[in-house]
Amino acid sequence: MSTTSTSQKPEIFEELDPSPRLLMGPGPVDLYPRVLRAMSVPIQGQFDPEFRRYMMQTMALYRQVFKTANQQTFMIDGTARAGLEACMHSIIAPGDKVLVPIFGRFGHLLTEIAKRARAEVISMECEWGQVFKPGEIADAVARHKPRMVAMCQGDTSATVLHPVDEAGEACRRHGAILFVDVTASLAGNPFETDGWKVDIVAAGLQKCLSGPPGIAPVTFNERVVEILMHRRHIEAGIRPVDMVEGNGPIIQSNYFDLAMIMEYWDPKALNHHTEAASMLYAARECARAVLEEGLDKGIARHQLTSKALRAGLEAMGLGIFGDRKHLMSNVTGVVIPKASKSPDKVRAELLEDFGLEIGTSFGPLHGKIWRIGTMGYVCRKANVLRCLSSLETVLRRNGYKAPPGAGVDAAYEVYDDAQR
Amino acid sequence: MSTTSTSQKPEIFEELDPSPRLLMGPGPVDLYPRVLRAMSVPIQGQFDPEFRRYMMQTMALYRQVFKTANQQTFMIDGTARAGLEACMHSIIAPGDKVLVPIFGRFGHLLTEIAKRARAEVISMECEWGQVFKPGEIADAVARHKPRMVAMCQGDTSATVLHPVDEAGEACRRHGAILFVDVTASLAGNPFETDGWKVDIVAAGLQKCLSGPPGIAPVTFNERVVEILMHRRHIEAGIRPVDMVEGNGPIIQSNYFDLAMIMEYWDPKALNHHTEAASMLYAARECARAVLEEGLDKGIARHQLTSKALRAGLEAMGLGIFGDRKHLMSNVTGVVIPKASKSPDKVRAELLEDFGLEIGTSFGPLHGKIWRIGTMGYVCRKANVLRCLSSLETVLRRNGYKAPPGAGVDAAYEVYDDAQR
Repeated sequence: MSTTSTSQKPEIFEELDPSPRLLMGPGPVDLYPRVLRAMSVPIQGQFDPEFRRYMMQTMALYRQVFKTANQQTFMIDGTARAGLEACMHSIIAPGDKVLVPIFGRFGHLLTEIAKRARAEVISMECEWGQVFKPGEIADAVARHKPRMVAMCQGDTSATVLHPVDEAGEACRRHGAILFVDVTASLAGNPFETDGWKVDIVAAGLQKCLSGPPGIAPVTFNERVVEILMHRRHIEAGIRPVDMVEGNGPIIQSNYFDLAMIMEYWDPKALNHHTEAASMLYAARECARAVLEEGLDKGIARHQLTSKALRAGLEAMGLGIFGDRKHLMSNVTGVVIPKASKSPDKVRAELLEDFGLEIGTSFGPLHGKIWRIGTMGYVCRKANVLRCLSSLETVLRRNGYKAPPGAGVDAAYEVYDDAQR
Repeated sequence: MSTTSTSQKPEIFEELDPSPRLLMGPGPVDLYPRVLRAMSVPIQGQFDPEFRRYMMQTMALYRQVFKTANQQTFMIDGTARAGLEACMHSIIAPGDKVLVPIFGRFGHLLTEIAKRARAEVISMECEWGQVFKPGEIADAVARHKPRMVAMCQGDTSATVLHPVDEAGEACRRHGAILFVDVTASLAGNPFETDGWKVDIVAAGLQKCLSGPPGIAPVTFNERVVEILMHRRHIEAGIRPVDMVEGNGPIIQSNYFDLAMIMEYWDPKALNHHTEAASMLYAARECARAVLEEGLDKGIARHQLTSKALRAGLEAMGLGIFGDRKHLMSNVTGVVIPKASKSPDKVRAELLEDFGLEIGTSFGPLHGKIWRIGTMGYVCRKANVLRCLSSLETVLRRNGYKAPPGAGVDAAYEVYDDAQR
């Protein structure tokens, strides 16, 4: 393709008109309609007093979502992975010990990010679908005395929700910082930043918050602020005379430098990036939707919905993956039946013929389970029933015969029971 | 504020309803209405074949905007500053020499980013509002033989557009990589990636492309691909068996690792981040709008509009900042008249009373100039006239009396001349 000549007619393709989908994979998921609308609202400049007020409101909204009193609660302009990197690289100095309990793919990602910050990484692994035994993480913290413990609360790759309060206690006892990635779990499963002594937390919008991927809410406490102030470095040309720098090692990223970003979100509004205004509107609206329903009520909805989905799948003779005591309430691993000849063909037919997306899986689970998400706006009865009946049909066309109607009937029963 | 108790009623604030603004600062600017609409379109999953096709189209669209045949033309999910960091950190290995010609604030930012990648930074500065003399940059390249030359094409802080073709020639001669930041200039001023021998380029949407801040188009050629392959590192758990790693030093960011991101945008679709689908829709629509008008026609519109604005400002007795032979066509520096008692009050009254935002300035120009942007969708006659008449009124109320009506009349004249 040669496009360097300006005399050619430009190729601009067709109007944006994606086929409708019901996104029941591990994320992203369908957005709240009100969040879609929020992104179509005209933007303001980032130092406009009105826009600054929206920023401050967004901070206050996410304090409630994260259950924290942390002043430092704001957005990183990038996907959930950007939030992880900002949190980890802003704390980890070269040579710092970082302990990573791994129970799925995203634990591996945390080791990867820590290594690039030149940490000495100590990882511990348990089988995907399981959680660590009580005491294992606390023992590892006591033994290794790391600078930071970095872990996921929920790892969609393994569909498991890990307790984090044990790590919180252990980190306080041994002077470590606890970082928890709640991207996959927040607003669909219980989480308490302050109550569980979590020092720093990162999330994304594209799971139970039902927002667009591309902006990452984070929160951190005064223990983290102290580290950041020690590493504070102000960009040439914008340093106020009364601002002193820290004498710790410089944070290796400018874009992800939380010490600078927190002063951008501060009333002093020190210049840094240009805030992604449309994404900020989306983040604000996601939190408003979630808080308007009520966090606890929303979590109960996720729990009921996954219960109904799982009852339906089991009635179809399908196995549920993972330790039943520790499953996330927003994603379900379904063991692929042996009679189903091509797992990828099943997913493709669900997408093409029913407009329904479910997820494949990674690493040791690849080809063994599908993952079905019931998150945020998607997490509702009509979608569970649609998913079960579509899956029944597609499986039948691909060699696996479930008892006709058994899936939807079992799901109905869970919903009926809940109303009694 | 205590928000940890769940029994409290949540504080969700009011509906999003920002006051209308006309954004005539140095960016962000008003979005094309069609771009706002694109962001309200429901998203699809990132491995949906239809969504992948939109991604490939977006690559093809930006090849045309960047005037390049580079296969590697895609988006970084973050603001313009994220694009800069991805390009610089993916190339610069510790100890590499990086030459940065600085002619405004964003040149300083490039040195900052390079230093955090542990480069040996050699900077050269010229006075803000001026450009380097012909031969100066080429001589510095010959003398220092850097690994990379990093510069802005346009620096909004100084309102100047710098020639980059001289640096392109010199870099090829001396084996350096030329990186150019076109965030502030692209689509409002002529730029040729291939024609000017630029190896790697980063942009943002929030200036002449009239899109939202938050996604950064980049492009790079095979000289850069070779460096990336040497530093290629595949994330644990997703490495295909046939993929070999490079033996160069690892890129210090996972999120900004162009070697990985290019394979995510490749047909092999190696997993990395979750694409910011709504922002991708916006980026696609910005390019469609710009190419539909025609790049050259759009640039001519920017040139005519700034000519009209400047004629109006001069007729009001105000000075235009910077070397007239090298001004950007999308932002104008206005020398703040001495009679105007409070420059910040003028800006505040324009915003509050006229809904019109113009920009302040940084560093050596702070308090000396205002900056008026005429970019993208905002760049049109009605807005120039509105700006000049509003400014005349607000200046009069703040101690500076321009000849009544002279500003708008002079602008009208430029437009009338252009139609003759």
